[in-house]
Amino acid sequence: MSIFAGMNLSDKIYSGDDGWSHLQVLIREYRNPGIFILVDENTVSHCLPVLMTKCAGLEEAKVIEIKSGEANKTIAGVENVWQMLSSGRAMRNSLLICLGGGVITDIGGFAAATFKRGMDFIHLPTTLLAMVDASLGGKTGINLHSVKNQVGVFAQAKSVFIFTEFLATLPARQKLSGFAEMLKHALIDSRQHFEDLMALDSPEQACTELMILRSAAVKIQVVNQDPSEGGIRKVLNFGHTIGHAVEAYSQQNDAEPLSHGEAVAIGLVCESLISVSLLGMDENDFSLLTELVVRHYPHYSLPARSADELLVLMGHDKKNTDSSRLNFSLISNIGEPVYDQLPGEKLIRESLHYYVNL
Amino acid sequence: MSIFAGMNLSDKIYSGDDGWSHLQVLIREYRNPGIFILVDENTVSHCLPVLMTKCAGLEEAKVIEIKSGEANKTIAGVENVWQMLSSGRAMRNSLLICLGGGVITDIGGFAAATFKRGMDFIHLPTTLLAMVDASLGGKTGINLHSVKNQVGVFAQAKSVFIFTEFLATLPARQKLSGFAEMLKHALIDSRQHFEDLMALDSPEQACTELMILRSAAVKIQVVNQDPSEGGIRKVLNFGHTIGHAVEAYSQQNDAEPLSHGEAVAIGLVCESLISVSLLGMDENDFSLLTELVVRHYPHYSLPARSADELLVLMGHDKKNTDSSRLNFSLISNIGEPVYDQLPGEKLIRESLHYYVNL
Repeated sequence: MSIFAGMNLSDKIYSGDDGWSHLQVLIREYRNPGIFILVDENTVSHCLPVLMTKCAGLEEAKVIEIKSGEANKTIAGVENVWQMLSSGRAMRNSLLICLGGGVITDIGGFAAATFKRGMDFIHLPTTLLAMVDASLGGKTGINLHSVKNQVGVFAQAKSVFIFTEFLATLPARQKLSGFAEMLKHALIDSRQHFEDLMALDSPEQACTELMILRSAAVKIQVVNQDPSEGGIRKVLNFGHTIGHAVEAYSQQNDAEPLSHGEAVAIGLVCESLISVSLLGMDENDFSLLTELVVRHYPHYSLPARSADELLVLMGHDKKNTDSSRLNFSLISNIGEPVYDQLPGEKLIRESLHYYVNL
Repeated sequence: MSIFAGMNLSDKIYSGDDGWSHLQVLIREYRNPGIFILVDENTVSHCLPVLMTKCAGLEEAKVIEIKSGEANKTIAGVENVWQMLSSGRAMRNSLLICLGGGVITDIGGFAAATFKRGMDFIHLPTTLLAMVDASLGGKTGINLHSVKNQVGVFAQAKSVFIFTEFLATLPARQKLSGFAEMLKHALIDSRQHFEDLMALDSPEQACTELMILRSAAVKIQVVNQDPSEGGIRKVLNFGHTIGHAVEAYSQQNDAEPLSHGEAVAIGLVCESLISVSLLGMDENDFSLLTELVVRHYPHYSLPARSADELLVLMGHDKKNTDSSRLNFSLISNIGEPVYDQLPGEKLIRESLHYYVNL
């Protein structure tokens, strides 16, 4: 499934100087019905000034500020956005610009798609994670009592803009988070893609327009084949059944929880081990992946007794249509993703045990 | 725009004995992933037993009960439904049966369309209003701080079932409410349709399967031409720009507020008068409509000073893309609806004045 060779990015993705020009044109269309910009306390100070400088015509846009962090991706959070759109007299033909990371694009997309039954929105992702993953593919949503994205809709952003300028002020730990999704994309894409990431000294080096577009292209190609996740789109879930559970566990138990990508990196290790046991994935490749994760990511102290709780959390994963049979997306080898795999409880526990003792 | 002559009901609408048979078949498909039934305190006692008796296979369905009434069509209300779907382990391929009036179909449709980014739902409307209007056409939503349907999505029910059995226990005032939407459908459909409603002694007589399907057909034909309300669908808004404002006003000011249909009946009189002034609608037809409304509906004591407040409330109507120019759907004559009309403040005030002094 090598994608980069014949890369065919959706015409909705723009980047670089062409991107800024296109944004300028697009904004003009919405000046009259009104433009709203959704930011958090980080992007309002680090990214909004960049946007205002690079792009004329936003002087009258109304800024809606929400709190950053997955913990704020709640019903109360989206209600706040609806309320500010309403009091700012947003119309059905107004535009919402989502300027931020995955929380902003998830909440903003959901708020826009459900405000007056749907207003246009565009994404200007400002984190590596949002550029290669969250801003792409039309999934929007919020969490319900710590169950991730339990509520949401499929709704496509009118356009997505990749501007690496925004990464200049991004903390290193956030780059590490995005890098995990780039790893996942490489693992389901091709050996070459994986080896190119292996060769990098740090996730910092992955923050180029070319690397980002290459990673985004993997996701876009998969999504275009199956927008509403009836089948093949599930391959993007590799690393995420365990990853999401670890993320939720950490949020419930840690003062400073793991980032999404840090949890997914753990999920990739565990689910690759399951892939070795269940599908005969090459053990040497598994070792290379584990080394890569260990090299870049601090080890997370997951207590051995957490396995029961993690299994319960996995049962809440929305892709698992029958909660008694946990459904995984795995790889039979690098570049060969498969979905609807049922490894069973024993292999899941073994993989968690492996990570705990790493 | 006569519709009944060449009536072409969507294949998603079922009624009578055929409807019960189809429902039985449909339910079988969802037994395994699970069935949920959304009810309120009225339909749980009056309609759920009818459903359980007529339709085998629902013994294991989980019942979700919410409070009836427009005042409960809130974010808290939908959060409650999401939470009960979640704790009942609803899956993406589970089914939600919405058994109730417009509040149930609006909240239920929205909750289902947004739960795990979309599960299937069907409507079993139990009020006349829901049968001829709310359950049809794919609009779902909730209110935001008394602004009606400010939040929602377009999402089609998998099927809609019209079972007049449910009307047996419906209070007369609720039938009056549904009758106003039937009047609206007749007014935008044809003189014959309007005259047939004129000939009825009471709204009670409109509660037949034939009359209901005829009215539903008007809506369905319009919606099929324009599902997301870009143009022609707006004709269904006739009577509603003023009607919605009167409804919101009454909710804010009255201990026992007007029903939706009672407010729409007032809206139909006012907007027909605007149609006379702006579009030359026949004055005799206007008199016939006014007589019909006066005959069936108690007069609502709207204070003369309410006009300012009503105009503000009209500015919140989501179809009015520029709030300084209030957009109406009117009729140039019976059976000749037009949309995107801008009567201006003076004609709106005159029409309110007319009703106040009726």
